[in-house]
Amino acid sequence: MDSKSLYQLLSAVASGKKSAEEAVAKLMNIACEDIEYAHIDHHRSLRKGFPEVIFGQGKTADQIIGIMEKMLRQENIVLVTRIDQNKAGQVISRFPDAKYHQDARMIVCKKNDLPIAGKGTILVLSAGTSDIPVAREAYLTAKVMGNNVEAVYDVGVAGIHRLFNHKKLIDQASVLIVVAGMEGALPSVVAGLVSRPVIAVPTSIGYGVSFGGVTALFAMLNSCSSNVAVVNIDNGFGAGYMASLINSL
Amino acid sequence: MDSKSLYQLLSAVASGKKSAEEAVAKLMNIACEDIEYAHIDHHRSLRKGFPEVIFGQGKTADQIIGIMEKMLRQENIVLVTRIDQNKAGQVISRFPDAKYHQDARMIVCKKNDLPIAGKGTILVLSAGTSDIPVAREAYLTAKVMGNNVEAVYDVGVAGIHRLFNHKKLIDQASVLIVVAGMEGALPSVVAGLVSRPVIAVPTSIGYGVSFGGVTALFAMLNSCSSNVAVVNIDNGFGAGYMASLINSL
Amino acid sequence: MDSKSLYQLLSAVASGKKSAEEAVAKLMNIACEDIEYAHIDHHRSLRKGFPEVIFGQGKTADQIIGIMEKMLRQENIVLVTRIDQNKAGQVISRFPDAKYHQDARMIVCKKNDLPIAGKGTILVLSAGTSDIPVAREAYLTAKVMGNNVEAVYDVGVAGIHRLFNHKKLIDQASVLIVVAGMEGALPSVVAGLVSRPVIAVPTSIGYGVSFGGVTALFAMLNSCSSNVAVVNIDNGFGAGYMASLINSL
Amino acid sequence: MDSKSLYQLLSAVASGKKSAEEAVAKLMNIACEDIEYAHIDHHRSLRKGFPEVIFGQGKTADQIIGIMEKMLRQENIVLVTRIDQNKAGQVISRFPDAKYHQDARMIVCKKNDLPIAGKGTILVLSAGTSDIPVAREAYLTAKVMGNNVEAVYDVGVAGIHRLFNHKKLIDQASVLIVVAGMEGALPSVVAGLVSRPVIAVPTSIGYGVSFGGVTALFAMLNSCSSNVAVVNIDNGFGAGYMASLINSL
Amino acid sequence: MDSKSLYQLLSAVASGKKSAEEAVAKLMNIACEDIEYAHIDHHRSLRKGFPEVIFGQGKTADQIIGIMEKMLRQENIVLVTRIDQNKAGQVISRFPDAKYHQDARMIVCKKNDLPIAGKGTILVLSAGTSDIPVAREAYLTAKVMGNNVEAVYDVGVAGIHRLFNHKKLIDQASVLIVVAGMEGALPSVVAGLVSRPVIAVPTSIGYGVSFGGVTALFAMLNSCSSNVAVVNIDNGFGAGYMASLINSL
Amino acid sequence: MDSKSLYQLLSAVASGKKSAEEAVAKLMNIACEDIEYAHIDHHRSLRKGFPEVIFGQGKTADQIIGIMEKMLRQENIVLVTRIDQNKAGQVISRFPDAKYHQDARMIVCKKNDLPIAGKGTILVLSAGTSDIPVAREAYLTAKVMGNNVEAVYDVGVAGIHRLFNHKKLIDQASVLIVVAGMEGALPSVVAGLVSRPVIAVPTSIGYGVSFGGVTALFAMLNSCSSNVAVVNIDNGFGAGYMASLINSL
Amino acid sequence: MDSKSLYQLLSAVASGKKSAEEAVAKLMNIACEDIEYAHIDHHRSLRKGFPEVIFGQGKTADQIIGIMEKMLRQENIVLVTRIDQNKAGQVISRFPDAKYHQDARMIVCKKNDLPIAGKGTILVLSAGTSDIPVAREAYLTAKVMGNNVEAVYDVGVAGIHRLFNHKKLIDQASVLIVVAGMEGALPSVVAGLVSRPVIAVPTSIGYGVSFGGVTALFAMLNSCSSNVAVVNIDNGFGAGYMASLINSL
Amino acid sequence: MDSKSLYQLLSAVASGKKSAEEAVAKLMNIACEDIEYAHIDHHRSLRKGFPEVIFGQGKTADQIIGIMEKMLRQENIVLVTRIDQNKAGQVISRFPDAKYHQDARMIVCKKNDLPIAGKGTILVLSAGTSDIPVAREAYLTAKVMGNNVEAVYDVGVAGIHRLFNHKKLIDQASVLIVVAGMEGALPSVVAGLVSRPVIAVPTSIGYGVSFGGVTALFAMLNSCSSNVAVVNIDNGFGAGYMASLINSL
Repeated sequence: MDSKSLYQLLSAVASGKKSAEEAVAKLMNIACEDIEYAHIDHHRSLRKGFPEVIFGQGKTADQIIGIMEKMLRQENIVLVTRIDQNKAGQVISRFPDAKYHQDARMIVCKKNDLPIAGKGTILVLSAGTSDIPVAREAYLTAKVMGNNVEAVYDVGVAGIHRLFNHKKLIDQASVLIVVAGMEGALPSVVAGLVSRPVIAVPTSIGYGVSFGGVTALFAMLNSCSSNVAVVNIDNGFGAGYMASLINSL
Repeated sequence: MDSKSLYQLLSAVASGKKSAEEAVAKLMNIACEDIEYAHIDHHRSLRKGFPEVIFGQGKTADQIIGIMEKMLRQENIVLVTRIDQNKAGQVISRFPDAKYHQDARMIVCKKNDLPIAGKGTILVLSAGTSDIPVAREAYLTAKVMGNNVEAVYDVGVAGIHRLFNHKKLIDQASVLIVVAGMEGALPSVVAGLVSRPVIAVPTSIGYGVSFGGVTALFAMLNSCSSNVAVVNIDNGFGAGYMASLINSL
Repeated sequence: MDSKSLYQLLSAVASGKKSAEEAVAKLMNIACEDIEYAHIDHHRSLRKGFPEVIFGQGKTADQIIGIMEKMLRQENIVLVTRIDQNKAGQVISRFPDAKYHQDARMIVCKKNDLPIAGKGTILVLSAGTSDIPVAREAYLTAKVMGNNVEAVYDVGVAGIHRLFNHKKLIDQASVLIVVAGMEGALPSVVAGLVSRPVIAVPTSIGYGVSFGGVTALFAMLNSCSSNVAVVNIDNGFGAGYMASLINSL
Repeated sequence: MDSKSLYQLLSAVASGKKSAEEAVAKLMNIACEDIEYAHIDHHRSLRKGFPEVIFGQGKTADQIIGIMEKMLRQENIVLVTRIDQNKAGQVISRFPDAKYHQDARMIVCKKNDLPIAGKGTILVLSAGTSDIPVAREAYLTAKVMGNNVEAVYDVGVAGIHRLFNHKKLIDQASVLIVVAGMEGALPSVVAGLVSRPVIAVPTSIGYGVSFGGVTALFAMLNSCSSNVAVVNIDNGFGAGYMASLINSL
Repeated sequence: MDSKSLYQLLSAVASGKKSAEEAVAKLMNIACEDIEYAHIDHHRSLRKGFPEVIFGQGKTADQIIGIMEKMLRQENIVLVTRIDQNKAGQVISRFPDAKYHQDARMIVCKKNDLPIAGKGTILVLSAGTSDIPVAREAYLTAKVMGNNVEAVYDVGVAGIHRLFNHKKLIDQASVLIVVAGMEGALPSVVAGLVSRPVIAVPTSIGYGVSFGGVTALFAMLNSCSSNVAVVNIDNGFGAGYMASLINSL
Repeated sequence: MDSKSLYQLLSAVASGKKSAEEAVAKLMNIACEDIEYAHIDHHRSLRKGFPEVIFGQGKTADQIIGIMEKMLRQENIVLVTRIDQNKAGQVISRFPDAKYHQDARMIVCKKNDLPIAGKGTILVLSAGTSDIPVAREAYLTAKVMGNNVEAVYDVGVAGIHRLFNHKKLIDQASVLIVVAGMEGALPSVVAGLVSRPVIAVPTSIGYGVSFGGVTALFAMLNSCSSNVAVVNIDNGFGAGYMASLINSL
Repeated sequence: MDSKSLYQLLSAVASGKKSAEEAVAKLMNIACEDIEYAHIDHHRSLRKGFPEVIFGQGKTADQIIGIMEKMLRQENIVLVTRIDQNKAGQVISRFPDAKYHQDARMIVCKKNDLPIAGKGTILVLSAGTSDIPVAREAYLTAKVMGNNVEAVYDVGVAGIHRLFNHKKLIDQASVLIVVAGMEGALPSVVAGLVSRPVIAVPTSIGYGVSFGGVTALFAMLNSCSSNVAVVNIDNGFGAGYMASLINSL
Repeated sequence: MDSKSLYQLLSAVASGKKSAEEAVAKLMNIACEDIEYAHIDHHRSLRKGFPEVIFGQGKTADQIIGIMEKMLRQENIVLVTRIDQNKAGQVISRFPDAKYHQDARMIVCKKNDLPIAGKGTILVLSAGTSDIPVAREAYLTAKVMGNNVEAVYDVGVAGIHRLFNHKKLIDQASVLIVVAGMEGALPSVVAGLVSRPVIAVPTSIGYGVSFGGVTALFAMLNSCSSNVAVVNIDNGFGAGYMASLINSL
């Protein structure tokens, strides 16, 4: 409700068209009606620039199929994350445009390719081979959202020369996604080398006091480099999404 | 060492100018010498685009003054974070260009204003009045790094209409920094409204099971919105730094 | 034994239909049976207004059947919570009045409908689709205890306009049950909109630092709204029970 | 601004005493003032039935005085919680209607007594003598919100006969607030005795593995009685507020 | 209420002296009235064999004096635990029979010595010198409760021969209290040497991952010896009390 | 080898039936066998009064059989704890004296009954039906170690009158073992009623913030009654062992 | 590629058998192969003196075989840790030099025995029989790296005389590896007896508050002996590796 | 007791010089008497090669002086760790040979210099300037124990080229001590560069989720390099002690 509408309401009171009681009732609801008004005719893909993504874990194949059917009536692209090969097989058999990416545990279903929206290159780095599924999820997410993406895997800090072999790629990236489990040290080292934003993704890889990725997460949040922000454990999708938004600015 | 240098080394061996033993020794050190070579003549402000920042907490005024003197010989701007009024008084009395910002607990010492580098506007939102010092630290950091910054405080979710009153600012921001303690819900709500990256900053405000900000941190990492990345508890500086890098892309 | 049955026994004594000795034996026998299994039921429905509820998880179908048989001799209604479809099938095949509600993982076995005891309406809100089983448990519990109950699912804070679409229901509820996993932000937002008591139920939905619902729980306990009290993770039954007591005042 | 004041304003418009323009200005001004400090007060007492409460901890006496001055222009009653005697002395010297309750660490400042709104009696029980400040905060909050409140302190489970000495009060209460630190067992025992809702308040009293109230909190959330809901550690205010809402249904 | 009383009640109904309604009301309260009846005329020192002990920490000297005055009217002995020298000075100046034991941070105030009640000897062992205050609290508690008590300090596992020098004392003790901080290993080692019950007391001595005694506590609960039970961190009093009860059997 | 067997060996030497050399060989052989597997048994039953107990969890049936065979050559009684029905079936088929107690998940294999060594009665109380396996483990352990043991199950604090129905047993016990999961409140309540030592056993029963028994454990360690000591989660065996030692003093 | 192979390549250049171009290609190729999988092996055995070790857990047999094939082209020895019997069977069927050590869950594949490099003896001690797999992993690792290694199992602190039976071995060891779960007390006791470095390995053996080895880990880090350093839970390989490096100094 | 002594004992029984009872008593004590006998005439400095060290924190100056006086009668060197300047002033005024090292918070009191015992060089590296006190404690400890020690401070991973500037020192060290707070990444990076043992020391430097050094500790224990072992948080002394033992092998 803008000030004009408010003026009209009060004029209606002044002219006797509305009683004071009616106006009280209406005014006590202002804040919410404002919001209602703004949102009723807005869809998520309008507001956020990308449709909602289906989190596959804990949903049946039938549930996923049902949601996809409704989404595809309106959307050009639908993503399903964290879906195993078995369920994925059932799902993609129903959608000719759907493709399962096993290494990233994702289904991408798109009618047309999205144009490249981001100007720079997003670089995905991962510390160990076991971190690759999470890194791939980040990679694929950024890719389908319309970005140039590069990836280098297995460049953890125990053999830091491996990282420096890719110094050129690192220097040229506009946004970096760094994926690591165990001690989670790689984002700090990488962020120390560049002037670009780094999205750090802890993974649940490790044993003992890795605590399913919590140690890596805390290490990343304590990074002595300031150009690091962090997402939840194993949240490759979120990192790719965030990096894509940054790259598209 | 690039492939040309490697060729020269091996040619020297082939021509007898270097023995095989000398080449072995040299090659076993390649990775690191490369790095040494590349970094000796590079300063942080060259590499990262902004000089190192002095973390004031736990340092004496004398230590801070000493570090500032050395930095100011080479840098245009120096920041000191987390410094209380008492120590700050001693420090700024020594540097005519230094100014203490009590609400952000920061000293900014700059010879010249930095040009506006970021194209969009960074918006800082905070949930409660107690979160303001952290929000101000983020605000000031982004400001001195050359960005247009806006701020709205005390728009927490317990009275969500306060947030919607600022819908216009929220929609126009290119990057958002959202600061909250207690249940840390504000970043999720804000991120659900926009298509821009949100940097979430948990604060240590709260009591009981707020655990000094840990609950807010975990809540933010669990955000059901995907455009959220998180920094350490009370790390307003890091959020401002990160937002500035993003805004400058 | 409810107070009506007790009254009938004592009236029988008063009218001479039963001797005092017979009544002593019956009442003492109840006390003795208690120690093994029955006392719970008898005294609880007198003292607490509703019979004990069978927590199905970790009990065999046979154990559940055995307990139900004993309870149904004295009670009008018996609930079994947290029972999967498989076990439920075995159980309900033995009791003609029993019905399994798969979405809530509950069996309700009642001889007669309970009269509507609560005057207002209890509203159950849930943040995500995965939170629905817990929300349904709360819904069904409040329903069978004799309340008008409404429910709205999937109105989490990532798309807060969905919540506002149901503002009317929210405003009219006398008690609200708000179910959420992940960052657990919904109860704070809802409680900020109403002047009624809100029972918050954290769920174990999430991954990484959701810690099986602990983060949602802590967030809810830190709510910046004062009209929120919290039950254990996934405890939909407890929330429905508590809301029913409040609504019946 | 309560609904009565709003009605008066609109009646003035309806009767021509105020123009629509004047009313727009006044109502918009409220909205504008909101952003800085006043919106909370105005809208909250309309929306929630009770004005915002000032959390005294971490605010200076001057800040508290400033907020109180603004609130008292529109509100009949203002509460300040968690304020020590020293600060409270400075604050109450400025407001003739303000009174400091040292045992509850609260200031109550009211122009007129609130009418008794709740029909039943709220009973506050506390386990140990050290839990009394939290219990008193709950007591006073419920009291000033217009309820009949009774309190019994020091009836912890180590000498459970003390509790049973008050069986009559317990049976007659419409809502119970049970405050306990250490092992937090009292709410379970009390809830097992009654058919009414119990609000459990863990306190930070204890040492070693009491972990500042976390053990008591977890114990209460695990209560084997179903009529228990829990608030944050030491949150006596929240419990009193919640109990008052329940009692007013 | 025993069966005789129940018979009388029901006879009164049968004879019309009581109505069925009165009997319903009375019977619904049976369990608790029984308890009430049994406890009203029982004091703690009757029930438990020793009067309540005053936990000094967090109480003022005046509060302690007040409680002591009331207790000493009925009791032969009063203990105050965790009281510092300053407060203790004020307290003992008021009671001629009171003595402060600084090493144990306890006041013992007794009119007459208690007779030796325990038949065997209680042995208190502590791992380090910093654990001595807790060990002394255990020692003094067991002593004033009427036991023969021996103590050996500083026999931690880093120099295990020190422990074996006291093998004779260890073998002859009827109950052992073993006090240790840091890694908390001493109770396991001692319990492996004897066939008697060992009460283990973790202390808050240590730094880093000693977590204020939590590590020692967990280590003791994991003891590979079966004759170990554990009390809360720094709870020397509880260990002495428990050992005294065991020794008095 | 118990002290009687040792005496017989040495008597044989004294009477010339065995040479000193033969005895050296036998006694040294014991020492040598120790390193592999047997020393434990021999020395422990001398030193501790009861042979080592086999922790069945994580051992194969074959391993358990192997250890039992060696132990039974020298011991009158062997216990196996935490063994499921399947493995137990294989084990007891090999030992005619072995009996599996399914409710306690234990095998007891004894050649002769042990004489009653403890003078008083040990009482085992458990809060819920799910706690019974742990309670039974405690019961059986105390029983086979030669004690009079009584047990009452399902007397948790949610219906505290159930506990008071057994007041007589409680008052007469010389040692009490109290088993509880969830909020772990029962030991505090029971310990408040008696002057005897209480061994508290937390169980892993519960969900959400019961954290597999940790909440119950912490609650018990924080007991406001002083006559409580605690063993590890689900450690019924340890509680029975400890209670037996206390009862045998 | 070890330093000998590198020398041969460069000698071939020096003698004209290979051109500088060919050598550049070969050395650059190594660098390129690195990125995918091979660089690790080559550079690590040069830099660290021992090739990388394959962490078998979470890899398929095929993946392990693939990595081994590439490593064995250049290395004399390859280790696979944490591999179960099933997968190991598939792997060793492909490599005639490979042998599976079930007790240590390791594959050792070596072309030639390594010479004994360490001068002293490494002693591995373990507290319980369940700790043996971890102890064996340490033992075997140290053995194949060229050390004299001794091991004594099942000498935990509950029967400390078992440890002293091996005093001679303990005194003569140059480095000690001490493996323990549960309360993790053994390293402290052992380290108190010797002047040599002790590497402590916590294991995940235990239940309840052993927290999968975390309690043992923390106890070891709190050791009151100074000659103790600790590795991650169950990290027998790391302990053997570290001890070997120390012994080879 | 060796086999000869055992033979003599048994011969005494055979010859009637000792009764079987006497021998039983003696044999039941073997293990421990052995140990007693072995340790009575052994001092710590004999057994461990270095006298006990005084942990200054929590001790008064007088207590420290008292302990030092007794130690200096027998020892050439005494160390006091964690002592602040104030207390240190009082202590060193009493011992002419004592010197306070403020940067390491240690007193070293030695009559004569210890000869250099270690053959190699110990290198101490620290990540940040705030970690220097812990690094200095390690440095000084290793130094006074007779080692060549080098130190480089402020070479954290945020500017990793700083580390590579000291590659030569790093390559030549025989043992490395790496000190780091915050994310604790430096030990992993350093250990990846060398084939020598690395002792990692987490420090309590950091804020938010650094949890007083716990995050750094866990990161170090999760190091992807195998040549790392870890000591407790801030335990510079332990690291220096351990490194000295390793270097002296």
